[in-house]
Amino acid sequence: MKSYKIALIKGDGIGPEIIDEAVKVLDAVASYSGFILKYEDLLMGGCAYDITGDPLPQETISGALNSDAVLFGAIGGEKWDNLPREKRPESGLLRFRKELGVYANLRPAVVYDELINASSLKPEVVRGVDLMVVRELIGGIYFGEPKGRDATKGWNTMVYTRDEIVRIAHQAFKIAMTRSKRVCSIDKANVLDVSQLWRETVEEVAKEYPDVELSHMYVDNAAMQLIRDPKQFDVMLTGNIFGDILSDEASMLSGSIGLLPSASIGAKIGVYEPIHGSAPDIAGQGIANPIATISSASMMLRYALNEEEAANKIDNAIKKTLSEGYRTGDLAQFDAKEVCSTSEMGSIIANYI
Amino acid sequence: MKSYKIALIKGDGIGPEIIDEAVKVLDAVASYSGFILKYEDLLMGGCAYDITGDPLPQETISGALNSDAVLFGAIGGEKWDNLPREKRPESGLLRFRKELGVYANLRPAVVYDELINASSLKPEVVRGVDLMVVRELIGGIYFGEPKGRDATKGWNTMVYTRDEIVRIAHQAFKIAMTRSKRVCSIDKANVLDVSQLWRETVEEVAKEYPDVELSHMYVDNAAMQLIRDPKQFDVMLTGNIFGDILSDEASMLSGSIGLLPSASIGAKIGVYEPIHGSAPDIAGQGIANPIATISSASMMLRYALNEEEAANKIDNAIKKTLSEGYRTGDLAQFDAKEVCSTSEMGSIIANYI
Ligand SMILES: CC(C)[C@H](C(=O)O)[C@@H](O)C(=O)O
Ligand SMILES: CC(C)[C@H](C(=O)O)[C@@H](O)C(=O)O
Repeated sequence: MKSYKIALIKGDGIGPEIIDEAVKVLDAVASYSGFILKYEDLLMGGCAYDITGDPLPQETISGALNSDAVLFGAIGGEKWDNLPREKRPESGLLRFRKELGVYANLRPAVVYDELINASSLKPEVVRGVDLMVVRELIGGIYFGEPKGRDATKGWNTMVYTRDEIVRIAHQAFKIAMTRSKRVCSIDKANVLDVSQLWRETVEEVAKEYPDVELSHMYVDNAAMQLIRDPKQFDVMLTGNIFGDILSDEASMLSGSIGLLPSASIGAKIGVYEPIHGSAPDIAGQGIANPIATISSASMMLRYALNEEEAANKIDNAIKKTLSEGYRTGDLAQFDAKEVCSTSEMGSIIANYI
Repeated sequence: MKSYKIALIKGDGIGPEIIDEAVKVLDAVASYSGFILKYEDLLMGGCAYDITGDPLPQETISGALNSDAVLFGAIGGEKWDNLPREKRPESGLLRFRKELGVYANLRPAVVYDELINASSLKPEVVRGVDLMVVRELIGGIYFGEPKGRDATKGWNTMVYTRDEIVRIAHQAFKIAMTRSKRVCSIDKANVLDVSQLWRETVEEVAKEYPDVELSHMYVDNAAMQLIRDPKQFDVMLTGNIFGDILSDEASMLSGSIGLLPSASIGAKIGVYEPIHGSAPDIAGQGIANPIATISSASMMLRYALNEEEAANKIDNAIKKTLSEGYRTGDLAQFDAKEVCSTSEMGSIIANYI
């Protein structure tokens, strides 16, 4: 029997609860589909700092590199917000992405018909939305040098090399080939030098994908168009911070950030995680929505393990659960037949496998 | 009789059409209120480049500095997109802001009850929205050094000094004092050094305004919250590029970017302009919505000339026009009784003065 090694990074806040539910569903689909998943728990974030003094212990990096894929919960919380910068959970996360080399962050925003009323946007605006933000993840202003601060000044550098742009552009075009074959590249080329290089380079890469239609949009306009008419987008190609902003915005099209998964790929080992954070305010109460994490597990099966059929099984089980009217608290007002806890939600989805 | 000197920069695309309507309304209110407005046309943008070879001729700067306020239309268009960077209309605009020293860009997003159905968001989400983005306008990544590009690399610097943050924070707190007394400062302090200084400095300035409630939000979350629950915001204090993105996003709450004005202040002479662009695609057709510009003229009366009553007159005339069902094409589907041209719209509003 085929067997895969999955690194689990549960992290802080609601991380452990939602990962547990994803494991429940993964186990169900593995036994149904006939493969074995072996899990290894790895420490990261605030909990790692509390135990080891480091938000990203070396064993976590080597454990992850030794796995077939990483399933990630969430990290951070106020408790650790006043630590020195390099000890903060977020620094661990950024270093982790960099160490693994996952330069491409895929953030699909899909609106479930079953939850069409959950969005703060009108149903006719969001019905049928199916877009994918392809965000560069280990470059740009998140990592650029020089950076620093003193008592009177703070600075960061938004920098991209041609090679960094080329590789993320290829990812976007390849993904577009499997979808509606449209890439919209987001920049601020009317102001930023780095965006001019971005735009030129994307144009060049586009020549290798004659079937894909490329357009460009300024980031301010994109923030507007995403809520004016989100259906115009197929793949949105962005740098690190623009993608951070726009993908969070896009997540609201679906009605709850608790629904949306992500995949960070481009290197040997990929990282699969919900796009929401660790939500310390609701941790431990059993009310978090595990769907984003379960859906991330499905992306993991599809992209990392090539278990397309098993991934589809999960996606269908989620849809079935939603159309039957099961909802966690965050979506309780939206056509709920029954409001359930985090772990009930996991069990129901696992059951539908 | 009191008399004011207004510099008019019509600019490109729809700029001339919408400024003409604002002048119509200004003249009406001036004669009603008993003051005189003297206008001087100044060249800027693509049209200035075409005539003088420079998107921002020196006479425009001195003309503006010699006026009591600047009313600005819009600049730019594809025609000039391939000029060398420093000849492009946008470069002229950035230089103009810098030369005048208008470091505070105020962008109110108000939802007119009359147009509650025009937004792509649900009426219950946007009804009563009344927020103000206070955007730093002459610093940050728009101007930071080093910046540049070569064949393989592009870079820009997001930099803020403590002094720059202090002065924009004061603006935000002062404005909050005249409103609901809440400031939400937007940054990315979990990643950026410059944001850490931003957050600390804003905290310090806040101490001088004990009546104002200060909160902080990461920019990605802010992009989400703006559409999840925009009513939570009163004043949003942001840096240059975050404010560019978030204010464009916020503009969609109102249903049309053709409605929203802005004021750029902080120096001797302020600049008043619609937040939309030059829309070359609809220029010359007489279908542009002049309300954003007319509303900017009202801000000019209020902030630059201290003609509060005249400003209110304009605001009321706009509301009356909308509630009577007059709409330009962009809003034709939303409870229109009559669809009118740019110039008809200007005349109707002028009539209601
Ligand atoms: C926690 C933070 C550093 C992170 C980011 O900005 O990348 C998060 O917002 C995300 O999008 O995954
Ligand atoms: C045209 C462009 C340079 C400008 C900016 O980004 O500041 C515009 O988007 C604005 O917001 O006024």
